[in-house]
Amino acid sequence: MIEPFAAVEVIAAKRDRNELSNEMIDWIVSAYTRGVVADEQMSALLMAILLNGMNTREISRWTNAMINSGERMNWSALDRPTTDKHSTGGVGDKITLPLAPLVAACGGAVPQLSGRGLGHTGGTLDKLESIPGWRAELTNEEMLNVLKSCGAVICAASAGLAPADKKLYALRDVTATVEAIPLIASSIMSKKIAEGTSVLILDVKTGNGAFMSDPARAGELARAMVALGTEAGVKTRALVTAMDVPLGLTVGNALEVRESVEVLAGGGPDDVRELTILLAREMLSAANIHEKDPADALKDGSAMDHWRRMISAQGGNPDAPLPTAKETHQVRALSSGTMTTMHALKVGVASWRLGAGRSRQGEKVQAGAGIEIHAKPGDLVNKGDLLFTLHTDEGARFERALESLEGAVGIVQGGVADRLPLVIERIEP
Amino acid sequence: MIEPFAAVEVIAAKRDRNELSNEMIDWIVSAYTRGVVADEQMSALLMAILLNGMNTREISRWTNAMINSGERMNWSALDRPTTDKHSTGGVGDKITLPLAPLVAACGGAVPQLSGRGLGHTGGTLDKLESIPGWRAELTNEEMLNVLKSCGAVICAASAGLAPADKKLYALRDVTATVEAIPLIASSIMSKKIAEGTSVLILDVKTGNGAFMSDPARAGELARAMVALGTEAGVKTRALVTAMDVPLGLTVGNALEVRESVEVLAGGGPDDVRELTILLAREMLSAANIHEKDPADALKDGSAMDHWRRMISAQGGNPDAPLPTAKETHQVRALSSGTMTTMHALKVGVASWRLGAGRSRQGEKVQAGAGIEIHAKPGDLVNKGDLLFTLHTDEGARFERALESLEGAVGIVQGGVADRLPLVIERIEP
Repeated sequence: MIEPFAAVEVIAAKRDRNELSNEMIDWIVSAYTRGVVADEQMSALLMAILLNGMNTREISRWTNAMINSGERMNWSALDRPTTDKHSTGGVGDKITLPLAPLVAACGGAVPQLSGRGLGHTGGTLDKLESIPGWRAELTNEEMLNVLKSCGAVICAASAGLAPADKKLYALRDVTATVEAIPLIASSIMSKKIAEGTSVLILDVKTGNGAFMSDPARAGELARAMVALGTEAGVKTRALVTAMDVPLGLTVGNALEVRESVEVLAGGGPDDVRELTILLAREMLSAANIHEKDPADALKDGSAMDHWRRMISAQGGNPDAPLPTAKETHQVRALSSGTMTTMHALKVGVASWRLGAGRSRQGEKVQAGAGIEIHAKPGDLVNKGDLLFTLHTDEGARFERALESLEGAVGIVQGGVADRLPLVIERIEP
Repeated sequence: MIEPFAAVEVIAAKRDRNELSNEMIDWIVSAYTRGVVADEQMSALLMAILLNGMNTREISRWTNAMINSGERMNWSALDRPTTDKHSTGGVGDKITLPLAPLVAACGGAVPQLSGRGLGHTGGTLDKLESIPGWRAELTNEEMLNVLKSCGAVICAASAGLAPADKKLYALRDVTATVEAIPLIASSIMSKKIAEGTSVLILDVKTGNGAFMSDPARAGELARAMVALGTEAGVKTRALVTAMDVPLGLTVGNALEVRESVEVLAGGGPDDVRELTILLAREMLSAANIHEKDPADALKDGSAMDHWRRMISAQGGNPDAPLPTAKETHQVRALSSGTMTTMHALKVGVASWRLGAGRSRQGEKVQAGAGIEIHAKPGDLVNKGDLLFTLHTDEGARFERALESLEGAVGIVQGGVADRLPLVIERIEP
C-alpha cells in the first residue's frame, strides 16, 4: 500500500496552526490504527491538537474516521427506539444503574456500552461486577437478546467498536493529552455513534470532581458533542450537571449498587433520584416515548422489575447479598455547625485509595471498598457526629485515604451550603 | 530505583505553560535515556516545548542534563588551546574541510566532531569519506593522537558522547519537533560542550537553504547558543551567515572535497575562501593565538600541508584521484541577462536527489554525485551558457533533480544580484 502522506507532514501542519485536510485526518487515524504511524508520532500530533485546537470540521471528520475504523451496531431488529445516556464521569455517579432499567420500564430500549474506572472516577462495569455472577462481556448477539427481553443492557464495548479510539485513549492517558475538548468529544461520540443509538443524552459533569472543573469549559464540551451527534443523525441533548460534591451517599462499587437499588425501590438520596428522573425524562421525550412518567415507574415497582430481569439476563443474582469490605474506619466531625462543602475530588481519591479504583489498566478493584457519607452540605452537624465510614479489605489503605480527606469537608457555625445547582445548563442542537 | 516523577506530570507542566523545575529536567532526560520514559511520552513533551517554549534556565539545565548523560572529553594532554567551529548546515557548505587544517597551521588545535547529512544539507563525514581510505570512526585515543600529530582531526562523535541527544535527535526527526530553538540549541551545544573544546565559533546559517530561513530567528538561535557555551565556560562567538545562495561552485561529496583542496592551494571560489578565513580568524583570536594570519597560511602551503597530514593520519590518500559520477547532464541558460538569484534550497534538493544525500539514516550516499555551478548571482550570462553540470551514477535521477532546479535561477536583463551579505550579524557574549 502506498501511503498518501508522511506522518511528519501531518504533525507539522497542526504544529504550524494549519487546518488538517479531510484526507489527512482520514489517513492518520487509519494509518495509526494499522500501525503505520507510530505511537511517538501520534502523541506529538495529539499534543499539537491539544495546544492548537481543531475546528468543527476537523473534529467531525476525526470522529468519523474513528467510527470508520471499526464496526457500527444496528438495532433495527428492535420494535422500539433506542435511547442512551453518557456521563463524563464523577464521584458517586451511579446514575446509569437505576436509569437504564427505569427508561426500559417506561418503553425505551437502552443499549448502554460502559467502561471501567481509571483514576478517581468509578466505572459502571466495576460497580455491576460486584453483583455475584454478573457478566460485563457479551457478544453482539447476546447484547441484542438482553435488550429485546429486558429493554436495557449494560455491557462492555466489543473490541470491534471504534478500535482507533481504544488505541488513542490508552496513548492519551500516558502522554498528558487527555484534557483536549476535540479529543474528548471525538472519543465519546465515536463510540456512541458507532453504538447505533438513535437518542443520546449527555450528562457533562463539572466542578472539582469532574474532568472539566470549569462550568464554561464543560458547556463548550457539551456543545461540541451535541453538534457531533446531531450531524451524525443521533438526537443529542446535554445537561451540564454538578460534580463539586459527590452524588448520593455512597462512593465505591457494591456500595453504589446498594444505593442504586434503593432508588429503584422508590427511595434513595434526593440528588440521585432527582437526576435519574431528569435524565430519564430527557431520554424518553427525545425518543418520543410518553407511555409512563419515570417518577411513577420508580414507585410502582416496574423499574425494579426491569433491573432484576436485566441483572439476571447477564448471569447476575439480584437477590444475592452484596460483598462487603473486611475493615471499616469512622471519620467524625471535629467541630459543630453547618456543613458548607464536601470536596468531590478528595472523596473520590480517598475511595480510589481504599481500593475501589485502579491506577493501571487491568488492575483488580475491591468490590466492597469505598465510602459511606453520613452528612452532606446544608446539614447541621455536631462535633463527634459521624461524617464518613471508610471501607476496605486492607487496613493499611486507611492512612492515605484519610490524607486525601483532609480539608474535604467545611463546617461553619451559621454557614450556608456553598455548592453548584444540580443542573447548570441544558443544551439542545 | 524509585522514580521521583511520573512522565505525565512533567509533560502536563509544560503543556500548561509552567516552567519545568531543574529536578524535572534532570529526571526526564535521564529517565528517557534509561528507557523509563517512553518515546511517545518524550515526543509529547517535545511538542509542548516546541509550542510553549523554555526559558534560559530551562534550556541551560536541559543542555547540562544531556551532557551528563554521557562522557566529557578532555584535551588537557595537548600543548595548545582547542578551538572548534560548528555550522548549522547549508548547501555547498564545505568550510570545515579547509578550515580545520588552516587553523591547525596557524597554531590552534581543532577537535572537530562532525555528522552525516540528512535531508538536503550535506554532511562533513560523507564528504571526507569520498577520499579513498579515509576513516570517520576513531577511538578517543586515536582522536587524541591525530590531534597531537596534525593539529586537527575531523571524525564521528563516539556513542558515549551525549547519548540523550542521539536518542532525542532521532525522535525529533520523525515527530516534526526539529524546529524549536531550545531543542536545536541544546542539541548542538550539549555535543560541543561534551567535546571539551575551549573555544567555539558558531556559523549559524540563514536564508532559504538553511534550517532557520529567517535572519531574526537565526540570530535568536545564535544568541541562545552563545549564552549556553559561555555559561559552560566555553569561549563562544557566533556569525549569522548567508545561505540563500549555495556556498562556492560545487555541491556534493567528492565535488566539495575538490573545491576545498583548491582553497587550501590558495585558490577556490571567493565566498568559500573569504568565509574560511573569517571563521579561522575568529577561532584563533578567541583562543588568543596570533602566530600567523590564515590568509598567509593558505598562500604559503602550510594549510595544505596540515590537510595532507590529517587525511593520511585517518587512513586517507590525499593523492588518490577523487571518485567521479558515471553520468553527467548539462543545464544551460534559457535567456540572457544578469543572474539575480540562485535558490540554495532548490540546488540542495537537486543534489540530494542526484544521490549526494540520504533520505533515511543509514542509507549510502554516492561519492561522485552532486552539482557543479558555472555562474553565480551577479554574473552576466548569455542564452545557452552552461549554468549547472549535474553528476550521478544513476541517469534515472536526472529527471527529479531537474524538477527541483526549476525556477532556481533568476536571470534579468539589466538586473542586479538580490542576495544576503555573506555575514549578517556577529554575536559575542
